[in-house]
Amino acid sequence: MRLLHLSDLHLGKQVHGYSMQEEQEAMLDRVLDLIDSQKVDGLLIAGDIYDRSMPSEWAMQLFDRFLAKLSERGIETCIIAGNHDSANRLKYGDWLFQKHKIHIAARFDGHVDRLQLEKNGQKIHIYMLPFLKKAYVRKLDPACSSDEEAVCYALGTIDLDPEAFNILMAHQFVEGSQRCDSEQKSVGGSDGIQASVFEPFDYVALGHLHSPQSVTEKIRYAGTLLKYSVDEIHQKKRALLLDICDKKIEVHEIEVPALHDFVEIEGDYMTLSSKTFYQDLNKEDYYSIVLLDEHDIPYVRKKLETIYPKILKITYKNRRQGKLETRSVQEMEAIDPLALIASFYQEQNGNAISEEQKKIIKDLWEETI
Amino acid sequence: MRLLHLSDLHLGKQVHGYSMQEEQEAMLDRVLDLIDSQKVDGLLIAGDIYDRSMPSEWAMQLFDRFLAKLSERGIETCIIAGNHDSANRLKYGDWLFQKHKIHIAARFDGHVDRLQLEKNGQKIHIYMLPFLKKAYVRKLDPACSSDEEAVCYALGTIDLDPEAFNILMAHQFVEGSQRCDSEQKSVGGSDGIQASVFEPFDYVALGHLHSPQSVTEKIRYAGTLLKYSVDEIHQKKRALLLDICDKKIEVHEIEVPALHDFVEIEGDYMTLSSKTFYQDLNKEDYYSIVLLDEHDIPYVRKKLETIYPKILKITYKNRRQGKLETRSVQEMEAIDPLALIASFYQEQNGNAISEEQKKIIKDLWEETI
Repeated sequence: MRLLHLSDLHLGKQVHGYSMQEEQEAMLDRVLDLIDSQKVDGLLIAGDIYDRSMPSEWAMQLFDRFLAKLSERGIETCIIAGNHDSANRLKYGDWLFQKHKIHIAARFDGHVDRLQLEKNGQKIHIYMLPFLKKAYVRKLDPACSSDEEAVCYALGTIDLDPEAFNILMAHQFVEGSQRCDSEQKSVGGSDGIQASVFEPFDYVALGHLHSPQSVTEKIRYAGTLLKYSVDEIHQKKRALLLDICDKKIEVHEIEVPALHDFVEIEGDYMTLSSKTFYQDLNKEDYYSIVLLDEHDIPYVRKKLETIYPKILKITYKNRRQGKLETRSVQEMEAIDPLALIASFYQEQNGNAISEEQKKIIKDLWEETI
Repeated sequence: MRLLHLSDLHLGKQVHGYSMQEEQEAMLDRVLDLIDSQKVDGLLIAGDIYDRSMPSEWAMQLFDRFLAKLSERGIETCIIAGNHDSANRLKYGDWLFQKHKIHIAARFDGHVDRLQLEKNGQKIHIYMLPFLKKAYVRKLDPACSSDEEAVCYALGTIDLDPEAFNILMAHQFVEGSQRCDSEQKSVGGSDGIQASVFEPFDYVALGHLHSPQSVTEKIRYAGTLLKYSVDEIHQKKRALLLDICDKKIEVHEIEVPALHDFVEIEGDYMTLSSKTFYQDLNKEDYYSIVLLDEHDIPYVRKKLETIYPKILKITYKNRRQGKLETRSVQEMEAIDPLALIASFYQEQNGNAISEEQKKIIKDLWEETI
């Protein structure tokens, strides 16, 4: 049995004001090509189908066409909702989709959906756990006090078959993995799940983080197939091909090149705007530009756009800016959102935020994120 | 063959700030009861499924459940998009729906979808024409200069079978019909379609207008099943049951009572707030209240809400207000939106709007509406 593990399509996304429509159309076409060329039996999409709970018309249309093409191929498709998806919208039509091998788990209601597959005598069970946070589980278990407890609660409802190869799909932040700019930050580290929680499963197909990475050999983030932020510029995006046979799994990483890449170029203005520099570059790519000039170049974006039409970001790296830039990025990484709100409150009101107010904000934050 | 003709569900609608969720859930349940009790073979919904192009989650969920229940019953369902619907959103999943007897025509692309049914030797053809305006057809025929021409263009692509009983579904304003407050007004009368255009069809199942009405015996608006504005308060809402046999049609009007009614009550404050007056009224109904007091009652809404929790509107009818109120409503009916914009422009700018500006506004208006 050969499965393809993807996640975080984020259909409808804009990056620095650029619509990703054309890129995402090409991305899904390449996924279909991969399914055909690799003779894939099933597709797992581990959450964040859309970039927003209220997806744009073209994003819905794109996903609709993709599902239609999957259905034509007759392969099994398992989809879980991510934190960016609206459960109700993702569920639309699912009573019919499921009759055509498209299985959607959009909301945890006390029961984890299971799909049972079998090929060459090997039973494969796929458990679909949509994005979970403690607030969702509190209705079922008022004592639930962390996202890890929520996930444990959900996994506790599963009766695993030791005969089968058991796969879990989940959309969570697992402790030890690394985040990048295009992912949501959260308060503190309270929402992380220990990898040990997933011990009983033979493979865990994760979504949520955009950087492809393995937490352990058998707990993996597929990551996005496209770069969605400047700090993903040097990543190699790939799909995960899972070959399962005799209760063993082999995971192959397959590069899926984007229609247009995100590229970083560095130099002074004169260099970057000289023909010898840019003539071999693809103008259709998206550029992050690092200028080494000591002094600001007037209207530099407008000027560089005549050469590089799709500019993600321009930064200066020089004696004056270098230190500031670096410190600022480090600060952004280290910042605690609660501390930020507290300092804003102090500035606005002239007195410090109370512990009670902090608690309200923390609770609201966790409900929302 | 027995068909049920409905239109203008406007799922997701709010009326004077009240969500119609509970009412619309009950409405769709009653439609299902009617389908069962009357042994209906097919359902026609002539546009405006949703109230907004971006429907709320609960509206989508409600419609999804309704489609699932229709599908369980195995009846043919024909749906066209109205002016309130987003074609792309309504089309989502339709490649699969159509395999399960749910037929959705969301956008006219030069071809009118036809569904062929047959029962007891009687062929019935249903043509599904989604909401059309000249701007949609101009891409196909740049000479198209009115909505009527647009509809004629679309109908011109149909090759009618004289052997069959031919039904057209459309979502348009047909000249001679009457509008009410919950429907969109349009510039002048330029968007009206002459009834004669529909002559070749044996029955025309219309949507768009909220008041149930017949343009001719065979060209009918089903109207909404719920009251959506105060001026619909005295209407009797109903569904249209179509019995077709031997190329003849019988149309039966069937009352479908709402879960809670819209009710108008009139009297002075002392009367309306006395127990003898209100004790037999249903507090769960929606009230339009006409006060006869000569002087304004302070905080009257707050006071009356303790008796009538769901108040749509409070108006005074007395010597002072009576004349003003009456004139204002008449004015609203007669008003030409372009004249309104012109007077606003004059007021803002101190000079009259030019003919060129008027043309731009008119064109924009017609593109948008």
